[in-house]
Amino acid sequence: MKVLVTGGAGFLGQKLANQLLSRGSLKDSDGAEQKIEQLILVDVVKANDFGDSRVKVIAGDIADPKLIQGLITPEIKSIFHLAAIVSGQAEADFDLGMRINLDAARLLLEACRKAGHKPKIIFTSSVAVYGGALPEMVLDTTALNPQSSYGTQKAICELLLNDFTRKGFVDGRVLRLPTISVRPGVANKAASSFASGIIREPLNGQPSICPVSPDLRIWLLSPLYAIESLITGHDLDSSKLGLNKSINLPGVSVSVGEMIEALHKVASEETVSLISIEPDPKVEAIVRSWPASWDASRAQALGLKSDPNFQSIVEAYIEDELKGKS
Amino acid sequence: MKVLVTGGAGFLGQKLANQLLSRGSLKDSDGAEQKIEQLILVDVVKANDFGDSRVKVIAGDIADPKLIQGLITPEIKSIFHLAAIVSGQAEADFDLGMRINLDAARLLLEACRKAGHKPKIIFTSSVAVYGGALPEMVLDTTALNPQSSYGTQKAICELLLNDFTRKGFVDGRVLRLPTISVRPGVANKAASSFASGIIREPLNGQPSICPVSPDLRIWLLSPLYAIESLITGHDLDSSKLGLNKSINLPGVSVSVGEMIEALHKVASEETVSLISIEPDPKVEAIVRSWPASWDASRAQALGLKSDPNFQSIVEAYIEDELKGKS
Repeated sequence: MKVLVTGGAGFLGQKLANQLLSRGSLKDSDGAEQKIEQLILVDVVKANDFGDSRVKVIAGDIADPKLIQGLITPEIKSIFHLAAIVSGQAEADFDLGMRINLDAARLLLEACRKAGHKPKIIFTSSVAVYGGALPEMVLDTTALNPQSSYGTQKAICELLLNDFTRKGFVDGRVLRLPTISVRPGVANKAASSFASGIIREPLNGQPSICPVSPDLRIWLLSPLYAIESLITGHDLDSSKLGLNKSINLPGVSVSVGEMIEALHKVASEETVSLISIEPDPKVEAIVRSWPASWDASRAQALGLKSDPNFQSIVEAYIEDELKGKS
Repeated sequence: MKVLVTGGAGFLGQKLANQLLSRGSLKDSDGAEQKIEQLILVDVVKANDFGDSRVKVIAGDIADPKLIQGLITPEIKSIFHLAAIVSGQAEADFDLGMRINLDAARLLLEACRKAGHKPKIIFTSSVAVYGGALPEMVLDTTALNPQSSYGTQKAICELLLNDFTRKGFVDGRVLRLPTISVRPGVANKAASSFASGIIREPLNGQPSICPVSPDLRIWLLSPLYAIESLITGHDLDSSKLGLNKSINLPGVSVSVGEMIEALHKVASEETVSLISIEPDPKVEAIVRSWPASWDASRAQALGLKSDPNFQSIVEAYIEDELKGKS
C-alpha cells in the first residue's frame, strides 16, 4: 500500500512517518495488515526522508487543487491529514486559516471521492472545537461551539469527513487531540505554544514567558501517545465508531501551576525560575475557551491510551529529546 | 434600509416578503426600528413582487460569486438567507447540495465581510442537523451529528455564521426550524414533504402516499409561526444569544398517526381514506434520524413561539389556504 501524510514535514508528521517506517504496515478497511510500500510526505517545505527508499517527499501547496488531484490515486490506501495553520495564526490571518484548514481538507475529500476507491483517511481535530458554555464534563455528545476560527475550521472538517464517510466516499475517522506537550523545537503561533515552551525552554536554559494564569487547566497528551493514537485510530474498524466518527482522545488534565510543579520535581530552582508569568488576554481568551478535560471513556473502550500523568510526560521529553540531560 | 431575501420566490420567501411589506420595518443591530425602503427577492426563478414598488426581483444563481458580490452593498442592512436545496434532493445530488447549501452561504458571508458594514444575517437551519444516537431530550447543547448531506451542509453553515459573527464580520443568528407543515402547493423533494402532503392532498380531494410508519414522531411548526420566528429572530439583540447564535425553535411534537387523527377531526372519513401508508426505507431513514422534539426553553425565553398543537395547524391551513373549505 501507499500511504500519504500531509503536513509531513511538521513535528507530528515526521514523528508519525518515523513510526510508520519502523512499523512497516497498517491495517486496511477489512482489518488485514498491509505492507507500506511507499510513504509520501507532502508539505509546504521538503520533509526529511530519513534516508529510507520507501519515502517520497513532495513540497507544494496543500490547497492547490492540481497538487491534490495528482496525489490521490487509487494506490493511496491511507491518508493522514495533519497539515494545518495553528490556532493563533488562523485567528490572525482568517483567509489563510480558511484556505489551509478548510479548503484543503475539502479538496482532499473530493479527490478521494473522485478516485473512487474509498481510502482510509484520518483527520486530526482539537480541543478547540469545544467552547462557549461548557458542561462540567465534556462528552462525545457535547455540542461543538468553537470560539476561534481554527476550532470552527476543524469542526467543519469533522462534519465533512463524517458525511463523506456516511456516503461511502471515504473510510474516515477524526481524532480530537489534546494539546500536545512537550513539543521539541521552537515556539510556534499556536495559542497553546506555551504548554511546551514553559517546559522545553527552561530545560534548555532559556527563559520562557507563560501568557496564561497558573490556575488555567489544560488537556494534554505527549507526542508519543499522540502518534500511537493516530496509528491505533487508523487501524480501528470503522463500524466500531458507530454514527459519529469523531473521537475525543484520552489525555491528562493539569493546571499550568501543576505543570511548573512537575518541572520542579526533575529540575533545579534555577531552571524553574526561567519561567515568568505574563498573562496575554488574547492567548488566555482562546485557551480558556477550550475544555480542561473531557470524558474519554469511548476512546478508552476502543483501545486508545494516554500518558499516566504530566510528570511522566516531562520525564519522557527529557529521555527522548534531551537524551536524559535535565 | 434595504433588505435581501434569498430563496425569495420560494414558499417561505414569499410569505416572509408579504409579512415584511405589511409590517414595513425591522430592528437594526442597535434595536432601532428602521423603515424597509427596498426589499430585494433573489431566487433562481423570478419571485412575485406583490405589485409593491418597494420590491425588486432578481432571478439568478445564488452560488454565482458575481451575483452575490453585486448584491451585497453597504445599503443592505438585513439578509434572510432562505435559499436551499431540500433534504431529499441534496441526498440524491451531492454536488448540487454542496454548491447551494454550503458554497452559496459562504459566498454570502464573505461578501458581507468584504462590504464591511456588519449586516444582520438570518440563516435557517433544520432538525436535520441532529442525528445519530440522540439523548431522550435534545438540548441546545446537544452535539450536531447529521445523518444526511442536507443536515451536514446546514450544520457547517451554522459554524460559519457563528464564527463570522464572533469575528464581527456580520451580526448573525441561526434559526433551527422544525419541519414546516402544512405547506400549500405541491410536493417537493424534501424527505419531510409528506408532513404537508398527507394533510394538503386529502383536503384537496387528492390521494396521498405516506412514506413513513404512523408511529414516527416529528417536530412541526406552521408557516405562520415560522415567519413570525424569522422576524422575531431578526429583531433579537445578538448579545442575548450568548456565545451560540443557533436557536432551536419551539414546535409541536406529533406522530404521523396523530396527524391523521387531527385531520379526521375536521374532515370526513372519505377524505382521510385518501391517505395510504407505504413506507419507503430511504425516506424513513432520513426522517427517523431527526429529533421528534427538542427542548425549546431557551427560544421561549427569547420570545419565540409555536402553534399550541397540530389540530390548530390544520385549522389554520384550512382557514388561510382553503378559505375555510374543508
